[in-house]
Amino acid sequence: MELERLVPAALVEPVRLHEAIRWSLFADGKRFRPAVMLAVGSTFCVEPEQLIRSAAAVEMIHTFSLIHDDLPAMDDDDLRRGRETCHKKYGDATAILAGDVLQTLAFKALAEDSRLSSELRVRIIADVANASGTPLGMVAGQQLDLEAEGRTISIEEIETIHARKTGALITASAVVGAIIGGADEIRMAAIEKYASRLGLLFQITDDLLDVTQTTDMIGKTAGKDADAQKATYPGHFGVERTRKMARDVHDEACAALTNIDRDTALLSSLADHVLSRTK
Amino acid sequence: MELERLVPAALVEPVRLHEAIRWSLFADGKRFRPAVMLAVGSTFCVEPEQLIRSAAAVEMIHTFSLIHDDLPAMDDDDLRRGRETCHKKYGDATAILAGDVLQTLAFKALAEDSRLSSELRVRIIADVANASGTPLGMVAGQQLDLEAEGRTISIEEIETIHARKTGALITASAVVGAIIGGADEIRMAAIEKYASRLGLLFQITDDLLDVTQTTDMIGKTAGKDADAQKATYPGHFGVERTRKMARDVHDEACAALTNIDRDTALLSSLADHVLSRTK
Repeated sequence: MELERLVPAALVEPVRLHEAIRWSLFADGKRFRPAVMLAVGSTFCVEPEQLIRSAAAVEMIHTFSLIHDDLPAMDDDDLRRGRETCHKKYGDATAILAGDVLQTLAFKALAEDSRLSSELRVRIIADVANASGTPLGMVAGQQLDLEAEGRTISIEEIETIHARKTGALITASAVVGAIIGGADEIRMAAIEKYASRLGLLFQITDDLLDVTQTTDMIGKTAGKDADAQKATYPGHFGVERTRKMARDVHDEACAALTNIDRDTALLSSLADHVLSRTK
Repeated sequence: MELERLVPAALVEPVRLHEAIRWSLFADGKRFRPAVMLAVGSTFCVEPEQLIRSAAAVEMIHTFSLIHDDLPAMDDDDLRRGRETCHKKYGDATAILAGDVLQTLAFKALAEDSRLSSELRVRIIADVANASGTPLGMVAGQQLDLEAEGRTISIEEIETIHARKTGALITASAVVGAIIGGADEIRMAAIEKYASRLGLLFQITDDLLDVTQTTDMIGKTAGKDADAQKATYPGHFGVERTRKMARDVHDEACAALTNIDRDTALLSSLADHVLSRTK
């Protein structure tokens, strides 16, 4: 398995750091971003071997963000992916370093991916970095999310936060699949549209699961967002209107696929799956 | 100035994040890693324009590590580069994110450096990532350093910690200068030897300054390492023997330069400067 090869063995010094990385990386994650990348790649007839390194790298970036978001100084959560959060298990200092170094290992993995040309690699690294960073990427979204806590914010602000915090890396995952697949400009624009709606759908269903499911089912603390007065869709619109929104956003994602002129059944079924997911 | 161009303006949202980045990045840092890279590049007749992006990127990586090392969960320091630490000024959450995103911005900067070929860029990204990461890089060194606190460790352990925590990125800075300068294998080995001794010298003199200088002079809390029972050279050997070690390591660094067969006056004077530095 590619991810297994990309992180040092748990026996290698510093053992505690590598155990902490593995604790979070090999928990029961959904691997949603790799799934998006592989589905888009498959749509453009890319061999999975060409994609698995990039797919592993975005999962490492995502896991780094989860470890840091869960820290006491941030969202202060005890449970993630069905087990103790990294800092609960290994302490705050090691968790900070585990997150830091997962980011480093992700960029190292992308730079050393000999299955792709150097030109493709630098383009992918730049795309992933833009999606992970600031001002339009994941870390910027997390900062805005922290600043929004405890105050009433508009739906536009909620969308801005999500587009950066989760949407950007999901879109980048799709875009990387399309880049490696040699997609032209029109198809790339369609993939971006599809992925941005899919990312929004993923966030809306995440918010719904937070209020409708138990902690046991979703593997992280349920009801947490509402307790923290986080900016959520159900908090803003109520559960029923949010469910309707999810269906609309699902349909927009599928509509974007009509411009791709390929067999997009896999991408539609991925959108279906996100709409109906229960964890 | 290259660094200025590589981080979003303080007025761009999220403002607090960008202010925090700038607070730490544009404090009175020594810019030692860029100086090493530019001195090596100059030795191989590289135009500064070819190097400034990579030099800025290693400074961003270094600054990210300082911000995270200073956090309460880590070394818990209040003063850095002559001003409040990032988390004292902006809070722990923003400081964590500022460090995170400085790393992201560094890899983005390297990937988008159009002054270098894609082949050079991926090689530099891989080298910088290896030096920053684990098991042989900066983050691994910080983990080992944390684990060593409060217990007596051998001189070999101290050297292992420093080689990773500070030595690796200093060596990488030199190596990147030599890569861009097209150094052959023999010269590259000489540069690595020089840089690893220079990095060790930098650490030894850092330890000496911690015990011999005032807080005001070094811009960070003096005596801090001794108080925390940190693994230091003066703590292990006493000040006088450590001073002798510094001179020996300086001479080893300069001796490595004889194999380079270029004008290495700049590199020698950099070693002289580190030996006699007072801040």
